[in-house]
Amino acid sequence: MATAEQSNTEQTGGRRARGGAEARRQARQKPPIVQNPYIRRNIPLVTVLDEEGLALMEKNADTILQEIGIEFRDEPEALELWKAAGADVKGTRIRFPRGLCRSIVQKSAPKEYVQYARNPDRNVVIGGNNTVFAPVYGPPFVRDLDKGRRYATIEDFRNFVKMAYMSPSIHHSGGTVCEPVDLPVNKRHLDMVYTHIKYSDKPFMGSVTAPERAQDTVDMAKIVFGEDFVQKNTVLTSLINANSPMVWDGTMLGAMKVYARNNQASITTPFILAGAMSPVTAAGTIAQVLAEVLAGASTAQLYKAGAPVIFGVFASSISMQSGAPTFGTPEPTLVSLACAQLARRLGLPFRTGGSLCGSKIADAQAAYESAQTLLPTLQAGTNFVLHGAGWLEGGLSAGYEKFVMDADQLGMMQTLARGVDLSENGQALDAIREVGPGSHFLGCAHTQANFETAFYRSNIADNNSFEQWEAEGGLDAAQRANKIVKRMLADYEAPALDPAIDEALQEFINKKKAAVPDSNV
Amino acid sequence: MATAEQSNTEQTGGRRARGGAEARRQARQKPPIVQNPYIRRNIPLVTVLDEEGLALMEKNADTILQEIGIEFRDEPEALELWKAAGADVKGTRIRFPRGLCRSIVQKSAPKEYVQYARNPDRNVVIGGNNTVFAPVYGPPFVRDLDKGRRYATIEDFRNFVKMAYMSPSIHHSGGTVCEPVDLPVNKRHLDMVYTHIKYSDKPFMGSVTAPERAQDTVDMAKIVFGEDFVQKNTVLTSLINANSPMVWDGTMLGAMKVYARNNQASITTPFILAGAMSPVTAAGTIAQVLAEVLAGASTAQLYKAGAPVIFGVFASSISMQSGAPTFGTPEPTLVSLACAQLARRLGLPFRTGGSLCGSKIADAQAAYESAQTLLPTLQAGTNFVLHGAGWLEGGLSAGYEKFVMDADQLGMMQTLARGVDLSENGQALDAIREVGPGSHFLGCAHTQANFETAFYRSNIADNNSFEQWEAEGGLDAAQRANKIVKRMLADYEAPALDPAIDEALQEFINKKKAAVPDSNV
Repeated sequence: MATAEQSNTEQTGGRRARGGAEARRQARQKPPIVQNPYIRRNIPLVTVLDEEGLALMEKNADTILQEIGIEFRDEPEALELWKAAGADVKGTRIRFPRGLCRSIVQKSAPKEYVQYARNPDRNVVIGGNNTVFAPVYGPPFVRDLDKGRRYATIEDFRNFVKMAYMSPSIHHSGGTVCEPVDLPVNKRHLDMVYTHIKYSDKPFMGSVTAPERAQDTVDMAKIVFGEDFVQKNTVLTSLINANSPMVWDGTMLGAMKVYARNNQASITTPFILAGAMSPVTAAGTIAQVLAEVLAGASTAQLYKAGAPVIFGVFASSISMQSGAPTFGTPEPTLVSLACAQLARRLGLPFRTGGSLCGSKIADAQAAYESAQTLLPTLQAGTNFVLHGAGWLEGGLSAGYEKFVMDADQLGMMQTLARGVDLSENGQALDAIREVGPGSHFLGCAHTQANFETAFYRSNIADNNSFEQWEAEGGLDAAQRANKIVKRMLADYEAPALDPAIDEALQEFINKKKAAVPDSNV
Repeated sequence: MATAEQSNTEQTGGRRARGGAEARRQARQKPPIVQNPYIRRNIPLVTVLDEEGLALMEKNADTILQEIGIEFRDEPEALELWKAAGADVKGTRIRFPRGLCRSIVQKSAPKEYVQYARNPDRNVVIGGNNTVFAPVYGPPFVRDLDKGRRYATIEDFRNFVKMAYMSPSIHHSGGTVCEPVDLPVNKRHLDMVYTHIKYSDKPFMGSVTAPERAQDTVDMAKIVFGEDFVQKNTVLTSLINANSPMVWDGTMLGAMKVYARNNQASITTPFILAGAMSPVTAAGTIAQVLAEVLAGASTAQLYKAGAPVIFGVFASSISMQSGAPTFGTPEPTLVSLACAQLARRLGLPFRTGGSLCGSKIADAQAAYESAQTLLPTLQAGTNFVLHGAGWLEGGLSAGYEKFVMDADQLGMMQTLARGVDLSENGQALDAIREVGPGSHFLGCAHTQANFETAFYRSNIADNNSFEQWEAEGGLDAAQRANKIVKRMLADYEAPALDPAIDEALQEFINKKKAAVPDSNV
């Protein structure tokens, strides 16, 4: 059952708008943004492995860590730390005594943590029964119906941040919502982080492409939140990918080290296309993922005991005919569900899934695959959902229309997670008594009393008659989404930002940009 | 984990084709149809209510049955039977002592039953851990990309039966796959039933539009299976809808009576658009559905103790703005999952879901909504899934391309239901040892050994690069499905049917048609 808090918060927007005739008129013109709080899941977890299966996966992960070990490349300090912690270090290969990584993680990694936003109403709790949705991450291309597919720019980046800000069930502004390739590689992180701060008030992610860029992110966060606050609290959750199979590289470890030592969170994520980066079977993939996460998450604890770290997995597989990545297929669903169980046993927050698809456009393939990824993501009890909206083409492209469609699905997931309301109003026995056999519930008192909140209202779905739909142009879902994109970007208003902070940020960025020449590495 | 039987059966098609160079050449030209057996689910059930919630729903259903009662219209025999059984019958309103319907159902209704097909390999077990997928039911219109939307004809009906026959994960031929409006209403059932028998060898459904048409279906089944066999075994599963709220009408009861007294199965199904036929809340809808099913299923047992009966629900809701039906939204998912739990407690097989959508075309809306209905349908442990493929426009239209797309999703559900293979081959530790850190699994021995069966292979998804996809015409999923439709119908070959049976069927049909004038009621 939903808590009173959830129901109230999710409805205040509509009520707030009713301050009189003028307020109502304005509300009709530009409806207020009703932001939903992050999800407190109220439905049972979905699982795929029993106790025996989970213990077997843990045993196999320990075998991988002990016998084969993990490569730690270009990060000598990690090798030293692991030697001191009792691991067997030969060159860059580290072999771990059975149970060592797990005990290090369980000794100090938090089971859940608060990620603070510059607007305290947007703070999120990552872990436990909670789910936080974040947008797409990483695409070098964008696509919309007007201009087709093209390289992403900082303007696109800004647009996706704005749309995430305006989407009620996107709780987090994300990170590289698209890659602004019009800016030099060694400086674009400054504009990206600034954009998240300036154009949204939701929590965001930091740069991970180099340790010094991670440090820039932390320094900019200090300007916003204050130096002391950042040292004591988590204001960044950043994506640290393993180089699967069984490699952690210096760039990622270096960024993780910066974040961990500043008490900021890392999502240690094996990026898996099963069949290429892991075996072609679910059980083989699951054990390997667990081994890689155990090695990465415990390393974060060696860098700084107590630093928040998430058990992440990007689970997909490849086409055996072509080697191309595939999405929305059943095998990665099994991997994600099992890994969520293993994360809970380990005691870490969990990240997987999103609205993944291989389709190049926002068609039926995109939607089937995204839905078949997203629903199990929620059901698994995933705490942090990257790629919640906008993902196209195996992550190569961020879709404007796809973003709006996915955001609608995220709203449905938020409603689903509330479960069945068993209150007296939910039971509705009086409505059944009032209506009786052979009549209908359209106008009954209970229906009227619950009119505003009765069912989730999609902004994309066309449920009109065929005739009406045809008379209105016979648009498909992508064409309708295109109109919503334009309306959102036209209606967008930036959240207030203290001008002194804004100025300090710009000063920091300008100084950083002036210090070194542009470079594309 | 999958049984050996499943894995083998699902792979024999590929192996059978390898009888030599000539066989291989033929197989390349026209791949053999590999039929998957019905699903034996091997993943945990997904639930939404705990013991307390379930008991509350049962209590409320009993309150509805006792206080408000159910209307039984135009079926005097049912009123007599219920009087004799101890119910309070006033006019056409029957009020049931608490627990009476449940005890009648539990005394004689089977928990599962075999529905026989004319090809014994296609027999299905309905109930228990099994799931059977059947195609769309009921649309008066059809749609494809070539000719758009139009009234359905018997040729369309034949085409959908052929496509269901050729779809490996459609285990049942269904019933009114579309409504052949070019044939007179009082005779078209004869052609429909004949088409299922002639053009498929999968199990099928009977006519329910009048008791005498149900009897014609039984008589035709006797020609195929033998009179004695039909009296002792179930060869028909037919759709008996309640007239919600809280009405069972004479047409449906009359058809159910014919089927029950011939030991044939009925799916007693409240057809619910919540907000119109039931309260706007999930818990209110769930209790009402249970009450309606209890009344209907127990009536079937009064007609004939032991007749198979399924707990059915068609769960959807309406748009509060327009009153139009909506699909793929979260509230009906909660209703379906809860009703599945209640069906198991009652001890009846369960039907819900399918690939439902409100979209007029096979676009992203159609796919999101269908996937959001289908996956929970499988997870609920649904035993009989009507509308598994082809549903468009709230059931008003059967889509050719949509059918092919949905059938692909059904294949994914079949794979998902197999769960995680924890065998030694599944664990793949040797593959991980062979490959080691920093390499890839593409050519390793384990990948090669599992190449044929590693991942589900979609026939719709395009996973190629953007450049290749564009070079091949930049088709969307519906356009690719259109090509598959044409190939399927071109490749179709009817399963053998004993010419004596065929002749006897035609003779029966001709005699029936000649006996009365055409009529459209």
